[in-house]
Amino acid sequence: MIPLPDDFVVTPWEVSGDVDYDRLVEMFGTQRIGDELTSRLIKHTGEHQTMLRRGIFYSHRDMNLILDDHEKGNGFVMYTGRGPSGHTHLGHMMPWIFTKYLQDKFGVELYFQMTDDEKFLFGPDLTLKDTKNYAYDNALDVIALGFDKSKTRIFLDTEYSHMLYNIAMKVAKKVTFSTTKAVFGFTNSNNIGSIWFTSMQAAPAFLPSVLKEKNIRCLIPCAIDQDPHFRIARDVAEGIGYFKPALIHCKMLPSLAGSDKMSASLPTTSIFTTDSPEQIKKKIGNAFTGGAVSVEEQRQNGGNPDICSVYQYLYYIFEVDDSKLEERRRKCQAGEILCGECKGELTTQVTNFITDHQEKREKAKDVVEDFMLRD
Amino acid sequence: MIPLPDDFVVTPWEVSGDVDYDRLVEMFGTQRIGDELTSRLIKHTGEHQTMLRRGIFYSHRDMNLILDDHEKGNGFVMYTGRGPSGHTHLGHMMPWIFTKYLQDKFGVELYFQMTDDEKFLFGPDLTLKDTKNYAYDNALDVIALGFDKSKTRIFLDTEYSHMLYNIAMKVAKKVTFSTTKAVFGFTNSNNIGSIWFTSMQAAPAFLPSVLKEKNIRCLIPCAIDQDPHFRIARDVAEGIGYFKPALIHCKMLPSLAGSDKMSASLPTTSIFTTDSPEQIKKKIGNAFTGGAVSVEEQRQNGGNPDICSVYQYLYYIFEVDDSKLEERRRKCQAGEILCGECKGELTTQVTNFITDHQEKREKAKDVVEDFMLRD
Repeated sequence: MIPLPDDFVVTPWEVSGDVDYDRLVEMFGTQRIGDELTSRLIKHTGEHQTMLRRGIFYSHRDMNLILDDHEKGNGFVMYTGRGPSGHTHLGHMMPWIFTKYLQDKFGVELYFQMTDDEKFLFGPDLTLKDTKNYAYDNALDVIALGFDKSKTRIFLDTEYSHMLYNIAMKVAKKVTFSTTKAVFGFTNSNNIGSIWFTSMQAAPAFLPSVLKEKNIRCLIPCAIDQDPHFRIARDVAEGIGYFKPALIHCKMLPSLAGSDKMSASLPTTSIFTTDSPEQIKKKIGNAFTGGAVSVEEQRQNGGNPDICSVYQYLYYIFEVDDSKLEERRRKCQAGEILCGECKGELTTQVTNFITDHQEKREKAKDVVEDFMLRD
Repeated sequence: MIPLPDDFVVTPWEVSGDVDYDRLVEMFGTQRIGDELTSRLIKHTGEHQTMLRRGIFYSHRDMNLILDDHEKGNGFVMYTGRGPSGHTHLGHMMPWIFTKYLQDKFGVELYFQMTDDEKFLFGPDLTLKDTKNYAYDNALDVIALGFDKSKTRIFLDTEYSHMLYNIAMKVAKKVTFSTTKAVFGFTNSNNIGSIWFTSMQAAPAFLPSVLKEKNIRCLIPCAIDQDPHFRIARDVAEGIGYFKPALIHCKMLPSLAGSDKMSASLPTTSIFTTDSPEQIKKKIGNAFTGGAVSVEEQRQNGGNPDICSVYQYLYYIFEVDDSKLEERRRKCQAGEILCGECKGELTTQVTNFITDHQEKREKAKDVVEDFMLRD
């Protein structure tokens, strides 16, 4: 198993504790996004995008090779995905928003995998019907974000296995159980489907090369907890005739219960795309903040935005204006504003976003099939 | 791992040593085909078929439930298969010949699985293209045996994964790595595809129930070395909503090198369906027999048909007339015939069979697609 510290856990199936993202870079052996790469990205996109500027997307593997191939005219493709075990929440959408941004700027194809097999295999109470239904539900959220219909292909592992299985087998033949023990912490009690699964997660990185009948480099934007799968995919890639997939990693959106409780799947501490305005208001109203125990004390000593989930939501997604964010931070620390004001602002922002998203989500129902990769 | 004795090994991937079939029944926990079951089979087929009469098909699981369902009019289906790692030899065809007999007598459907995924995953030097090519090559041998085109469906795992993968996952979710260690002797060094594979081997037992949208009992005629896969399939069956598959097991055709060397894949000690008359003559000419060291000694002391591979071939397949076989045995033991005579007889029989088979095999090329299960 990855030698994780005692105070937090990060695997593709569990994130808990107060995650130290600097240590993750060291432990996983990824690269931080440094000045040189940042300059290249700015050159190509014409801006220093918010999530990059704020260090939310902060780590990578071979992103420089992706830009090399882009510059040489070889092109590249993107692959990301979703484990459909329930409705989509904002934490899931954060990397998709960035992926959409990259698609807009680079004009590249996106292959979007719904791992309904994974969620069935790892979810004691989930049926294949459940995870398939969630996959189609979650696909609406992907489409609602505005991905280019002509360049985006969504597929379910259970429905696209005729293409994925053969690629996955080539991966699987190169990966021993010992490796999955070391990388994921599996034991002899894991079921043989869960042990096999990482090869299905690797397959879409090579799928575009198979479909195009020529090798093309693949960039995987994802939260860093998914990196272990792709460490395996990278280890076997060249041995089966493909490029190692490149990655660009983001941090994980903290839960509304505070950054030391990353159980993002607790329904009361995450905002789902299916939530009503009343649910949003209630969840944000109950959010953990950096406020003092009394109004008087907060007016006198100020609050602590660094531990405040409301501030984190604004920082990660909802306040893209740096000066406004900085002003809010200053006012909080100076005791000039109270938590209710920030909660009100976030509630307005989130409600507007979700209301608009839900309209697009409804419209997405008419075009789902246009996005599905079948052949 | 199965507590196998020191003097022989029987797993789905290795058969070596002098197999004690009585001990296998005990170790695997199967049932011998006894008088009652034999009577029922005779009642339904009108005869005591040669392979049953000679104890070549000698063991079973739940064959009585198959006959119950047949008698009740619920019907049953059959499933057998082939791991396409090379050309077909007579040892592979022996259970198929019996399966064809059962299809003729009971008029039931046969689902025939080509595990090209397995042979890729377990074969260090085999590519997926190799195993797929062998699958289509081997399918010609299946078809040439005369299976009913309207009731026989052949499929390759890699081409039919869109149906098999979802069933296999339901199996896989119920099977731990510990179980595969115990049943197959896997270690941490096995690749994760090989660990997963048994769930793909189980899937066709449940496929007919999925396709028919109602549960139907499945009989698997196979050599007993494949039983461990189906012990797992039986263990999970009811938990995922299907009948336990029934089995009827045969012994394995000895190699021409003698029964203590069961490496059936050694090309010089097996007769392949693609062999020329010259190759057949040479292989049988070099076969291990029970003859004495000199003609004089054999004339005086006789030979030993029990250790003679030529006699075994006659016994297992090529001499269906019990009295002729018994007469040959008597003459051998009495020193009245020499090995050359038996080799000559077997060469004639095998050459006639293979020559005829090769003609049918050529014609099979025109109808392969009619047998393939695609949807």
